[in-house]
Amino acid sequence: MSKKLTSRAEDYSKWYNELVVKADLAENSAVRGCMVIKPYGYAIWEKMQAELDRMFKETGHKNAYFPLFVPKSLFEAEEKNAEGFAKECAVVTHYRLQNDPDKPGKLRVDPEAKLEEELVVRPTSEAVIWNTYKGWIQSYRDLPILINQWANVVRWEMRTRLFLRTAEFLWQEGHTAHATREEAVRETELMNNVYASFAENFMAIPVIKGVKTESERFAGAVDTYCIEALMQDGKALQAGTSHFLGQNFAKAFDVKFANKEGNLDYVWATSWGVSTRLMGALIMTHSDDNGLVLPPNLAPDQVVIVPIYKSMEQLDEISELAQVIISELKEKGVSAKLDDRDTLRPGAKFAQHELQGVPVRIAIGPKDLENRTVELARRDTLTKEIVPLDTLTGKIEGLMEEIQVSLYKRALEFRDNHITEVDSFESFKEVLETKGGFISAHWDGTAETEAKIKELTKATIRCIPVDSKEESGNCVLTGNPSSKRVLFAKAY
Amino acid sequence: MSKKLTSRAEDYSKWYNELVVKADLAENSAVRGCMVIKPYGYAIWEKMQAELDRMFKETGHKNAYFPLFVPKSLFEAEEKNAEGFAKECAVVTHYRLQNDPDKPGKLRVDPEAKLEEELVVRPTSEAVIWNTYKGWIQSYRDLPILINQWANVVRWEMRTRLFLRTAEFLWQEGHTAHATREEAVRETELMNNVYASFAENFMAIPVIKGVKTESERFAGAVDTYCIEALMQDGKALQAGTSHFLGQNFAKAFDVKFANKEGNLDYVWATSWGVSTRLMGALIMTHSDDNGLVLPPNLAPDQVVIVPIYKSMEQLDEISELAQVIISELKEKGVSAKLDDRDTLRPGAKFAQHELQGVPVRIAIGPKDLENRTVELARRDTLTKEIVPLDTLTGKIEGLMEEIQVSLYKRALEFRDNHITEVDSFESFKEVLETKGGFISAHWDGTAETEAKIKELTKATIRCIPVDSKEESGNCVLTGNPSSKRVLFAKAY
Repeated sequence: MSKKLTSRAEDYSKWYNELVVKADLAENSAVRGCMVIKPYGYAIWEKMQAELDRMFKETGHKNAYFPLFVPKSLFEAEEKNAEGFAKECAVVTHYRLQNDPDKPGKLRVDPEAKLEEELVVRPTSEAVIWNTYKGWIQSYRDLPILINQWANVVRWEMRTRLFLRTAEFLWQEGHTAHATREEAVRETELMNNVYASFAENFMAIPVIKGVKTESERFAGAVDTYCIEALMQDGKALQAGTSHFLGQNFAKAFDVKFANKEGNLDYVWATSWGVSTRLMGALIMTHSDDNGLVLPPNLAPDQVVIVPIYKSMEQLDEISELAQVIISELKEKGVSAKLDDRDTLRPGAKFAQHELQGVPVRIAIGPKDLENRTVELARRDTLTKEIVPLDTLTGKIEGLMEEIQVSLYKRALEFRDNHITEVDSFESFKEVLETKGGFISAHWDGTAETEAKIKELTKATIRCIPVDSKEESGNCVLTGNPSSKRVLFAKAY
Repeated sequence: MSKKLTSRAEDYSKWYNELVVKADLAENSAVRGCMVIKPYGYAIWEKMQAELDRMFKETGHKNAYFPLFVPKSLFEAEEKNAEGFAKECAVVTHYRLQNDPDKPGKLRVDPEAKLEEELVVRPTSEAVIWNTYKGWIQSYRDLPILINQWANVVRWEMRTRLFLRTAEFLWQEGHTAHATREEAVRETELMNNVYASFAENFMAIPVIKGVKTESERFAGAVDTYCIEALMQDGKALQAGTSHFLGQNFAKAFDVKFANKEGNLDYVWATSWGVSTRLMGALIMTHSDDNGLVLPPNLAPDQVVIVPIYKSMEQLDEISELAQVIISELKEKGVSAKLDDRDTLRPGAKFAQHELQGVPVRIAIGPKDLENRTVELARRDTLTKEIVPLDTLTGKIEGLMEEIQVSLYKRALEFRDNHITEVDSFESFKEVLETKGGFISAHWDGTAETEAKIKELTKATIRCIPVDSKEESGNCVLTGNPSSKRVLFAKAY
């Protein structure tokens, strides 16, 4: 397989698919729509997990684990939620295989081992969790419950793409229970802010915080908050959601608590999640035609050292120096490794590390040993320079911060240049087809108009930004009055 | 619900079940055989995960993620493996629900959405992983592959018990691929040693390393190594297994590689795993009639501080002091928290922390403030003493190590006192029924004798210890010649 990627200009979608596979992030499996996350891709996901987990715990949440399966009768209890997910549920109907009497050596489902009640493989866990919370909550003293779960979920998507839309994916889902509406709304907003801060400060991905319209809301939610990112091809990507569930699940599962006055009331709920989809956002925010570009925070190896040598003596000498550099970097909190594989030439190693987005590459050859220098290459700018050994590790420490910030700024500039205010449907369509990105426009607030615009343009309302200011205007489609602009875009 | 546990002497099994629920570790869910792991139980599991993950990475392994589902045709490819798990497979047959026309508001499986090929929910992942490795391995340069996966698996057990045997459980499964038989055997042994070291040094659980007999082997393995622990009721518990799979899976999935000489050969495999079952081992090794006893390494909170106060001024003063203690302990790497809940009296807090196994409890009252002392209680020995403030944190730092070692020694002494050499079947039965524990006896090496002994006594061969010495003798049942002793026990 050629290591050369299709360029983004040529075919963005093909570029993405090739990059994911060639950079060893993930691949399709034998199971329709399910992916294999390869070690390099998983190492990036682990970095995300560790930081998110830290942020969740810092805000008072604890992890727990709930069952993979949801009995059908629980699943259907909250009707809107059930309706929203019913069409994409993997269903377990049997609990045993047996030898196939017609085909020696083959197995078949044992017809005797049919479950009395079918089990849905969780597409999300509100049902099974609220059925559990019912047993945990009697009084206001039992509240709040602030729990997160790291888990796999299954949604039987018909058109799948690695990381962006897969039948099985990995995610975290927070599920909290509160005594008051206000507290639950605060939690919903808090976690959306945690997501925004994670995306911007850790992943270097600028996001817009907003609220979904009714038709884009999570099934069963009263309000869905979200963070929306913009990809390089001008399409938006929903990177995380935080739902205010009101008392919908408490009512469906009859979860009441005695408040301080001794009166019974239904419990208030939130849920919030991000998934391996963030890997897609990462790729489509920072990467280039040479492959993946990783912000230092997410790089499994932040620095790679490639030795250039003719003799084993040279290799030994370079390796010794490399080990010194590696341990000095380690002390500064920078992870580095020596790529001393003898099965690849330096050029092939350069290409691989470029493809895999290693932020800084150092090459050391015999000349460098003489001059006490190294060649340092930045992945984000593709620039190279000769650096004296005695300033090397200090320089790299600074570069980690510099690259992280610079990637964010670049993405922010691109994003800000791709928010266009329009005031007519003609320019709406034109901007959408030529420039892409977010379109900031007035909307009359009806689901009909929203649906009509989607039908005509494929653009959806990504969100009503939380910081959008009051401004009277006229709906871009109907001309009816509107009090604020919302953001439209085509989306992943 | 009463906080008082059934005593171990009264009913060990009931004591276990009550402890798991009352200490807030886990509970049964609405899904038959599946458990909810509660935050406190999950926090202990997270400590195990973190340490194991560190040990795996230190020995060169990387994490990855493979699909939850295994298409039936892949599942049946390795026949022995398939045969071993077929009877306990959850099977997905449909991918959609629809409104039930006969029952408004209810859902039913959509008969139109039947999968062409059924999907097995993974009971273990050799099949789906070796089918993937086929695409990754062409030459010896691609080997070894050293991968681990943290995942949930499902085995449809008919009789389940929290942590010990559940339909869904959490585990890690390592899957490695090697160029030579020798290297694969070395890996199998290495990982069994990693498990043993983890159990002994981190969990304070002494284990015996051994090899399984053919009838106790993993389905599809050539050899199964294991670590066996002894519970307080004299029953053994298999705490981890490491399998040498030979070329069985490589042959089933046609995974060949070109060796250095350019010849094609099948790849050699290992797999190894430990699961949330370790929570059961932890409980049944260290705990007592008052509840859980946690080795400091596994305690979510190693120290808890309970304030004893009448006025808010006193509480403020105690809290201030507690914060100083907590940050001093943090600097020494000891985690501590202040339990300042105003909904519980000190006595109730003491009982809860005892039930939940917090290694060290500190109580601070007004008298203590005057005297610059605290009351310190050890969970493992249930002893209390007055400790001057100025030596407190140093003392606690030392106690963490002391408790960890002391729990191990206590368990080791119990275990060693419960390995009994017997040379007749009469004493075999007598020891098994009265003293319990491991019985070290000669066995003639046949599956028939093994099965007969199991039938007569319910004892199985737990393992042939790796360090068992050559010793000629006669089989305890048949009198036939034997060259070494093996370990029998009743087991979980």
